[in-house]
Amino acid sequence: MRSFERKNIKAMEGYTPGEQPEAQSVIKLNTNENPYPASQSVADVLKSLDIASLRRYPSPTARKFREVAAELHRVEPENIIATNGGDELLRLLLTTFVEVGESIGVADPSYSLYPVLAAIHDCSVKRVPLTSGWELPDDFAEKMNAFGVKLTFIVNPHAPSGKLIQAEELAGIAQNFDGILVIDEAYVDFVDPEKNYNAIELIKRFDNVIILRTLSKGYSLAGLRFGYGIASTNLIEPMQGKTKDSYNMDAISQQLGIASLRDQTAAKLTWKAVRDERSRMVLEFNRLGLTSLPSQANFLLVEIPDGVAGGAEALYQIFKNEKILVRFFNEQRLKNRLRITVGTPEENGALLRVLKIAMNIQV
Amino acid sequence: MRSFERKNIKAMEGYTPGEQPEAQSVIKLNTNENPYPASQSVADVLKSLDIASLRRYPSPTARKFREVAAELHRVEPENIIATNGGDELLRLLLTTFVEVGESIGVADPSYSLYPVLAAIHDCSVKRVPLTSGWELPDDFAEKMNAFGVKLTFIVNPHAPSGKLIQAEELAGIAQNFDGILVIDEAYVDFVDPEKNYNAIELIKRFDNVIILRTLSKGYSLAGLRFGYGIASTNLIEPMQGKTKDSYNMDAISQQLGIASLRDQTAAKLTWKAVRDERSRMVLEFNRLGLTSLPSQANFLLVEIPDGVAGGAEALYQIFKNEKILVRFFNEQRLKNRLRITVGTPEENGALLRVLKIAMNIQV
Repeated sequence: MRSFERKNIKAMEGYTPGEQPEAQSVIKLNTNENPYPASQSVADVLKSLDIASLRRYPSPTARKFREVAAELHRVEPENIIATNGGDELLRLLLTTFVEVGESIGVADPSYSLYPVLAAIHDCSVKRVPLTSGWELPDDFAEKMNAFGVKLTFIVNPHAPSGKLIQAEELAGIAQNFDGILVIDEAYVDFVDPEKNYNAIELIKRFDNVIILRTLSKGYSLAGLRFGYGIASTNLIEPMQGKTKDSYNMDAISQQLGIASLRDQTAAKLTWKAVRDERSRMVLEFNRLGLTSLPSQANFLLVEIPDGVAGGAEALYQIFKNEKILVRFFNEQRLKNRLRITVGTPEENGALLRVLKIAMNIQV
Repeated sequence: MRSFERKNIKAMEGYTPGEQPEAQSVIKLNTNENPYPASQSVADVLKSLDIASLRRYPSPTARKFREVAAELHRVEPENIIATNGGDELLRLLLTTFVEVGESIGVADPSYSLYPVLAAIHDCSVKRVPLTSGWELPDDFAEKMNAFGVKLTFIVNPHAPSGKLIQAEELAGIAQNFDGILVIDEAYVDFVDPEKNYNAIELIKRFDNVIILRTLSKGYSLAGLRFGYGIASTNLIEPMQGKTKDSYNMDAISQQLGIASLRDQTAAKLTWKAVRDERSRMVLEFNRLGLTSLPSQANFLLVEIPDGVAGGAEALYQIFKNEKILVRFFNEQRLKNRLRITVGTPEENGALLRVLKIAMNIQV
C-alpha cells in the first residue's frame, strides 16, 4: 500500500492519551476526572432528551450555550466559542492564527498535547523551562518574543505541577508578549476561592488573550467533549465563522452544557470536596515521607525517591497491578514523580493502602 | 483590536450552512434530514444513558462502534474511523494528506464545503465541470492528474443533482487517478436497492479510495454529529493515530452510533418511505410542468423556469414566507433550480399546495 501522508505527518508520532480502561472497577486517578458525577439537574436534562429532536441539525453556533456562558463570566456571547472538547479549541488556535512554518511557545514541562498539535500543523515549538520552583521566568514574554513565536500556551493552574500563576502576572505577560497568549484553565474550577483568582477580566484589557475552559473536569463531563474559549472578538470571530467545523457541537452536548453551567451550586460542592481531599492527601503523603508541590488543581505531582518501591515507574506499575491507575511521564524532571488525581475519600484511601504496602509500612 | 489571523484565513469567507430555524413548526426541506426519527431501539439507548458514565473520558478510538461498522460493511475495524460528523473526516483528509500549497479536485458543481476546507488549509481547488447531463467526463481522472491534485472529492449520489455514479465507473477513476479518491456517500442510504450499488468493495482493490458515511441523513441523527470513513489502513491509520483530536467522539454518540447501525430494519423502513415519496414528487412536479433530474438521494433538484412564480429565488422566498424552507444556490447552473428535500407525505403535500398557489393553479 502506498503512503499518501504529508511529510510532517509521516514524521510525527501521535499523542498518547492516558489509559481509558472500560472496566468500571478500576480506580482511575490518571486523567484528572472529577470523582463525582454531574448534578441531578444535568441528569434530568439528559433524561428529557427526545430522539426525534436529533433528526435535525444542531445550532451551528451553540447560540444559547454562549449566552449562558457569557452571563456566567460577565462577557458577551460574541466573546465565547464552544468547542468539541478543549482540544478542538487548541487546534483551532493553530489553524487560525499560526502560519505553517511559524512557531508556538510552551513552558517546559507542560501539557504534552501542545507539541503534537504543532507537529500536525507543521510548525515548531519553542520551550522556555520553568524555574527550579516550577515558576515561569520573569522574562517569559521577552523570551517568547525573541523566539518570534506567534502564540504561547500557559496552562494555569499548571499541569502537571498544579501550581497557580496569579492573574496580574499573566497580565504582565499579555502586555509584553507580541503574539496570542492562550491561558488553558482546564483545572481552574479547583482553585481555592480565597485565592481570588480571575483571569477573565484580562480579555477586556488585552486583545491577545484567550482563556480555555472545559466541562471535562470541574463539571464531570469528560465523556461529553465540551470546551469553550473566552476572548475578544478579533480572536473569537475567525474561529467561529471560518475555521471550526460547521456543526462542531452536537445537540445533546449543547443542552447538557447549558444545564451544567446553570447549576453552579452542585458543581461547587464537588470542587470543595476535591479541595478537602487534596489537602488531606498532601498531609498523608508528607506523613509517608513523600513530598508534593502545593496544587491548585485536582491532582498532585508527588515526588517518589528512587529508594521508595523502586522509584516512580515501578510504583506506577504496582498501583496498576492493584487496579489503580495514576500517571507516569517518562520525561526529564517528571520521571521521579507520579501525577495522582484527587479521587473520592474511598479511592484515595485505597491508593494510600497500596502505597503503604509498597513502602513496606505496616497497614 | 489587532488582527492575528493567518493570511489565508483573513482572505477567506466562511461556509454558510443551510438555515437551521429553532421553531419546530417550520417545514424543513433545506438540509436533507431524514423526515422520520431514529428507531425505538436507538431511543431506548438514549433513555438508558447514565450521567455518571459521562464523568470519564470516552474511548479515544470509538473501538466498539468501529467493530459494529466493520461487521456491517464486511471490513475490519482497522478500516474504519469515526468522526464528529462527516465534516471532520473531510477536514482530516486535507490535514493528513494534502500539503499546504498543493491542490484538491472537485467536480463542479458539488458540495460547497469543499472549497471552504481548501481555503482553511491554504490549498487551491481545481474544478472539472460536469457534463450537460450532470455526469463526470470520461477523462475525469486524467484531468485531475494533469492538474496535479493530491485528493479529489466525488459525492455519490451527487449533490445537488441526486445522480448516482455506478461503482465500476468509480473503480476506473480510482485506477487511473494518482491521488486519493474520496467518495462522499452522505446520501447513499437512499439509493434504490435494485441499483445494486456497492462501492465499499473498492477499498479492498484500491489503496487510494476512502468512503465517507454519515448517520446524519439515513439514520436520522444530524443533531448527533456522527460520520465515519472506510478505507485501507494506509489512509485510516494516520488520521486515527495522529491527526484527529484525541477524544473526537463523545461517549453518548458512540453508544447511539452503535445502536443505529445495529437496527438496520428500522432505518431501512424510513429509506423506503423516502424513496416512495421521491418517486411521487417527481411525478407531481412533472404534472405541474417542472422537471427534476432522476435522484438517488433524498432530495430533488427541481428546475424552475423564469416564468414560474418569478423564478427559483423568488419561489424560495414564497416558500419561506409560508414557513417552508428549501435550498437555493446563487451560483451558475443552479440559480434556476431549487434543491428540495423529500419530506413526509404531509410535508411534501404542504409544499405542493404552496407551489400550486404560487403558480396560480387552482388548488
